[in-house]
Amino acid sequence: MKIINGGVTSAKGFKASGVKAGIKYEDRLDMAMVYSSKACTTAAVFTSNVVKAAPVLWDMKVVKEGPGVQAVVVNTGIANAGTGKPGMDICEFEAQKVSECLNIPKEAVIVGSTGVIGMQLNKDKLKAGIEALVPALGDSREHALTASKAIMTTDTVNKEAAVEIEIGGKKVTVGGMSKGSGMIHPNMCTMLAYITTDIDIDKELLQKALSEDVKDTFNMITVDGDTSTNDTLIVMANGEAGNERIREENEDYREFAEALHYVNRILARKMAADGEGASKLIEVCVENAADKESARILARSVAGSSLTKAAMFGNDSNFGRILCALGYSGVKFDPDRVDISYEADGRKMLIFSDGLQAPYDEEEATKLLDHKEVRIIADMKQGSENATAWGCDLTYDYVKINADYRS
Amino acid sequence: MKIINGGVTSAKGFKASGVKAGIKYEDRLDMAMVYSSKACTTAAVFTSNVVKAAPVLWDMKVVKEGPGVQAVVVNTGIANAGTGKPGMDICEFEAQKVSECLNIPKEAVIVGSTGVIGMQLNKDKLKAGIEALVPALGDSREHALTASKAIMTTDTVNKEAAVEIEIGGKKVTVGGMSKGSGMIHPNMCTMLAYITTDIDIDKELLQKALSEDVKDTFNMITVDGDTSTNDTLIVMANGEAGNERIREENEDYREFAEALHYVNRILARKMAADGEGASKLIEVCVENAADKESARILARSVAGSSLTKAAMFGNDSNFGRILCALGYSGVKFDPDRVDISYEADGRKMLIFSDGLQAPYDEEEATKLLDHKEVRIIADMKQGSENATAWGCDLTYDYVKINADYRS
Repeated sequence: MKIINGGVTSAKGFKASGVKAGIKYEDRLDMAMVYSSKACTTAAVFTSNVVKAAPVLWDMKVVKEGPGVQAVVVNTGIANAGTGKPGMDICEFEAQKVSECLNIPKEAVIVGSTGVIGMQLNKDKLKAGIEALVPALGDSREHALTASKAIMTTDTVNKEAAVEIEIGGKKVTVGGMSKGSGMIHPNMCTMLAYITTDIDIDKELLQKALSEDVKDTFNMITVDGDTSTNDTLIVMANGEAGNERIREENEDYREFAEALHYVNRILARKMAADGEGASKLIEVCVENAADKESARILARSVAGSSLTKAAMFGNDSNFGRILCALGYSGVKFDPDRVDISYEADGRKMLIFSDGLQAPYDEEEATKLLDHKEVRIIADMKQGSENATAWGCDLTYDYVKINADYRS
Repeated sequence: MKIINGGVTSAKGFKASGVKAGIKYEDRLDMAMVYSSKACTTAAVFTSNVVKAAPVLWDMKVVKEGPGVQAVVVNTGIANAGTGKPGMDICEFEAQKVSECLNIPKEAVIVGSTGVIGMQLNKDKLKAGIEALVPALGDSREHALTASKAIMTTDTVNKEAAVEIEIGGKKVTVGGMSKGSGMIHPNMCTMLAYITTDIDIDKELLQKALSEDVKDTFNMITVDGDTSTNDTLIVMANGEAGNERIREENEDYREFAEALHYVNRILARKMAADGEGASKLIEVCVENAADKESARILARSVAGSSLTKAAMFGNDSNFGRILCALGYSGVKFDPDRVDISYEADGRKMLIFSDGLQAPYDEEEATKLLDHKEVRIIADMKQGSENATAWGCDLTYDYVKINADYRS
């Protein structure tokens, strides 16, 4: 697997663009498009929220019943959620417009929205945006970069990742972009992620690879059930790499799954690090849990604990909050056997050992926590399963951003 | 039911005191005691956290197997959690000391702690504190007040409530105190609540009344499962009122349950209003849900949503966050039928109606939200069950308090 500097246009046959459409704010990139020269085998994961935004309802239908996705159009500023029937009409309007401009079926068009809930989108602005996006499409590095910037909301950096692998002598590329600085507890800031690949693969296998992988990537930056109305993750495979189609879980499948995992993991990690108002990335590693799912639940519980996050912001080695978050996760364990360590900048420090505070230097711990990336390690000593969750600290800026998000 | 100005000494036969014991900080009230002239029928609810503080383990045994509670001793500053065997020894040491000073069995002594996790308590300080608390005991209004102040940590106000009822011609009093500015998501700031009453009642019925009532009071200021290592709620009934002992769920029982509910509700509401860093109380009323438990889950989900809480701080009528929090609660409902309103200062404003934004004035909504107490009402139009949850807004001060809680 070769890590490359790339994004949604890295795989063969994909183009992208981004424009300023003035959806809610003037003079910022706020619409993006991804286009594939061929209809794609598509897999997806959507929000589990009972309140699903109109674009989610539209996309679910497209992925399930459509002829194969060929274009994605995304806007920021307005989420098109809580918008009822008029919101659904907007999705169809967008798809129809894209269909006309690109000469593809409207059932091949994925739409995505992120922003304020409850407001209706303006059709004229969307129309003008789409008409500007189509001629702007291109497959250069710059085009992918622009698209990844155009889907940002409160994100402070754009998020991309790409890798190359070889399957049966053919070069296969997987690349993607995502937005969301929503690694906040609860995660309600929409996550949108679009992955493109030129691999040739059966739809069921593509969905399987994606569904399995999100458990250890995108779902590890969120707390179970706390999902936005708009969360969407799409993987499009157009088969342009020319590999022999993957039809079973063979070595080729595993190779691809690994590449997909890398791209998903990097995008997920970038979202956590860019959490609203965050000053640092917190990686929570739960080791030696009784089983895999318990490891994931424990890691997520710590990463999502407001009090742990606030302590990390203050570089305060308040391990009691970590212990407490493990304790209320719902997973059974023996508190008198748990070890807790911090790790940063290649240095590891044991803080809590077998149920008691370890003899550590408070000042040294504060120094260790004062890094841009901090790892919290909890050794449960119950079994052999590990899991990693990603989060960020809770800062004044988080409150500031969210106290008046809409203005 | 007559609401009175009172606390833990309002019921007959109860005394209380509070002293400065220098447990962690100098010159602040940090130890409290409650004493009953007779052994009490006792009911309790403890934290569901897997990591239980030593005092919780001690108290569980006392309530279950002891001869009847006669004294409570509480310290703040150090939680005696994550302290292993030495922590358990401390509890026994405290109970032994109280037992000697008051000439009661040590198995009649409840101990409570709240503060930093992981640190060990100092026996000499506890001993001196207990020796000061016993002679300071008294049954005046002032004594109850002092005790309620001595259990405060990050609380900004002390919390008490009391009522009088009549049962079979006898005056029965129920009073209580609590601490916890922990109506924070997740709720990990310890809640301690001690209720005293002179009613004569069977233990099973007392426990039943308490267990039923917490579902609509103390558990409605927290998010399921997010409980501290130390959360403790104790009700002590010493029978001094002289009523005919309540042995079944008759009218007397219901009268008492109502009085207990009032005290619990006021204490719970006060804790929510005094949430760490809070600038306002948020009351979430879910109406017409399909069933009672769904109503509770929905109300708690909104009250616990960080993004809703941050919006309330900014007086931002961001109803999408409320809708979203209802949606990720896990309860099924039709988003296209939901109504959302705000209410404050006797004025109600419809914001979201049948799945669409209602035509309301944004500026007026901002003004309405700019009150010390704001009610969010969600009408689910599914059935006829209601529930209320209490929370507070998320402010800069919350982050400040928790970024460096230990220093």
